[in-house]
Amino acid sequence: MPNSHTPPRPELIALDWGTSSLRAFLLGEAGQVLQTRSTSQGLQALPMPGAAGFEKAFADIAGDWLASWPQLPVVAGGMVGSAQGWKEAPYVRCPADVGSLAAHSVSVPSGVGVDVVIAPGLLLDEVGTAPDVIRGEEIQIAGALAADPALAEAATMVMPGTHSKWVQVKAGRITYFSSYMTGELFSLLVKHSILGRLMTEVVTEEPTAAEAAFEQGVQAARHSQPGDFTHQIFAARTLGLTRRLPQHLLKNYLSGLLIGHELVSGLAKSSANRQTQGPLLLIGEPTLCQRYALAFATLGVPVTGILDNPAPRGLWEFAKALGLIHPPLDVLH
Amino acid sequence: MPNSHTPPRPELIALDWGTSSLRAFLLGEAGQVLQTRSTSQGLQALPMPGAAGFEKAFADIAGDWLASWPQLPVVAGGMVGSAQGWKEAPYVRCPADVGSLAAHSVSVPSGVGVDVVIAPGLLLDEVGTAPDVIRGEEIQIAGALAADPALAEAATMVMPGTHSKWVQVKAGRITYFSSYMTGELFSLLVKHSILGRLMTEVVTEEPTAAEAAFEQGVQAARHSQPGDFTHQIFAARTLGLTRRLPQHLLKNYLSGLLIGHELVSGLAKSSANRQTQGPLLLIGEPTLCQRYALAFATLGVPVTGILDNPAPRGLWEFAKALGLIHPPLDVLH
Repeated sequence: MPNSHTPPRPELIALDWGTSSLRAFLLGEAGQVLQTRSTSQGLQALPMPGAAGFEKAFADIAGDWLASWPQLPVVAGGMVGSAQGWKEAPYVRCPADVGSLAAHSVSVPSGVGVDVVIAPGLLLDEVGTAPDVIRGEEIQIAGALAADPALAEAATMVMPGTHSKWVQVKAGRITYFSSYMTGELFSLLVKHSILGRLMTEVVTEEPTAAEAAFEQGVQAARHSQPGDFTHQIFAARTLGLTRRLPQHLLKNYLSGLLIGHELVSGLAKSSANRQTQGPLLLIGEPTLCQRYALAFATLGVPVTGILDNPAPRGLWEFAKALGLIHPPLDVLH
Repeated sequence: MPNSHTPPRPELIALDWGTSSLRAFLLGEAGQVLQTRSTSQGLQALPMPGAAGFEKAFADIAGDWLASWPQLPVVAGGMVGSAQGWKEAPYVRCPADVGSLAAHSVSVPSGVGVDVVIAPGLLLDEVGTAPDVIRGEEIQIAGALAADPALAEAATMVMPGTHSKWVQVKAGRITYFSSYMTGELFSLLVKHSILGRLMTEVVTEEPTAAEAAFEQGVQAARHSQPGDFTHQIFAARTLGLTRRLPQHLLKNYLSGLLIGHELVSGLAKSSANRQTQGPLLLIGEPTLCQRYALAFATLGVPVTGILDNPAPRGLWEFAKALGLIHPPLDVLH
């Protein structure tokens, strides 16, 4: 049995490698995070093009870990496995679990002696609708299910972000998901559209007024009919022109409107696809999750909880499914 | 009676002055267009800030006309009457006709001896929904109704563009309208969003394939549920990723999806608000109107006709309602 004063032995290097960031985790023998590092060297900001860019970014963030512990396994999830990534790990069809991810992983030489095993994304391909894809969220779901096995029976996970994902889990597998371009569209409208022109920054803190404007947007979405989106967003201009809303609250209104549209659609699809209703969980950046929780509350829908980033745990589960994790000696003996 | 070889006598200078362009028309004694000029000196590209910018742009485009015919009346419509315009002509409430526009016009000295009379925009302000505004389209409607008085009884005018407008006319007055940010949003998504990254330009002419992709987008919109917009547009990426659509057709699909959403919503609002069904007309840039006509056909909705730009005729009607047009001598005697 290891001495309790012995520093924990690293077991795995886990990479969460997306479009705009690279995060590296050094994980211990129980999957606990020993060290975390983060850089902006996502796929869009690699130090050089092609495989060399991935190799250099990897060596920069994890080279010293491998110098200290040369044979550590390395796993990665996220856009690093896309067609624009280090090596493509083609999408796997739903339903899928972490075993499916392991079975369809790909390996690429890291340039510093070990291979990196990359997880695939998931494809949903149902008759009568356009296909949908996720890449990275499936790892987070694996982490969430490992952390709370009760969720595996049935749950809906809402993952807000640039492209929000609504993911349904049933009997331990991801059975359904859908993507919403909510975050990207909000940013585009504020930065580049005529709607942004009337928006002024908040001068004083007015949390109550800001929440009220946000909820007003959610309510407008609640009463929308099919196709109304491009009409309704114009209200973020007309409410300002007619002085119904102060200009510094137009952004809150637009945010409520966009998130509200996502919730109205997501909840309808979610109940249409769930035979058994499981808990509804938010996973993601805490401030954004709080905003979604307020929108759910405005619609009268209870949220069971908000989860911190489960990606490190998900990558650990991925490595376990790959057989890369060696059981601790005290379990063997 | 004037000699048939006498050149037509100008009666009016009419300005259609928007955000991105300024068009000037020299109109004859029957309202016919004698000369047309166009510059890019809209509100966003004036030669200098403030009133001086409007004065200079006006003198540049119409100064020689006024030098030849010094007492010609001048009228203007469009964003020139907005809060960012030459002089604000505050919005007039619906229902409204060209008489309402004349009654709420404002005048501004042109800097070259005559005044410019500016038309107001319209405000729709119904209980339970956000307000909506138009500025410029009300003048086009006045022109369309003058050109075809049968439309005055009841009609729906669809005016595609950066911000499309659906306008309902009943008993000669504009009774209802709604705005859609379709054109602006399409442009933003193609230029600035992740959807644009997969879109390639058409290499060969494939009108049939392009139409089919457009119609596929319209059909997806037809089957949308409330809130689905930000989910459905993601298909302009996933259809490319999964090679269901060639990359050079993704833009057509997205165009069909956005126009389809507008039509689904506009038709629902239009039938909810029309007691009597009148003809459905498209007004605007011919190529864009043709694309809308194809979308209407995909939905099985007949379009009665496509109108050329009725703004000069509308400005003529506005000037008549202001009492600025003198009847021809052969009518007086």
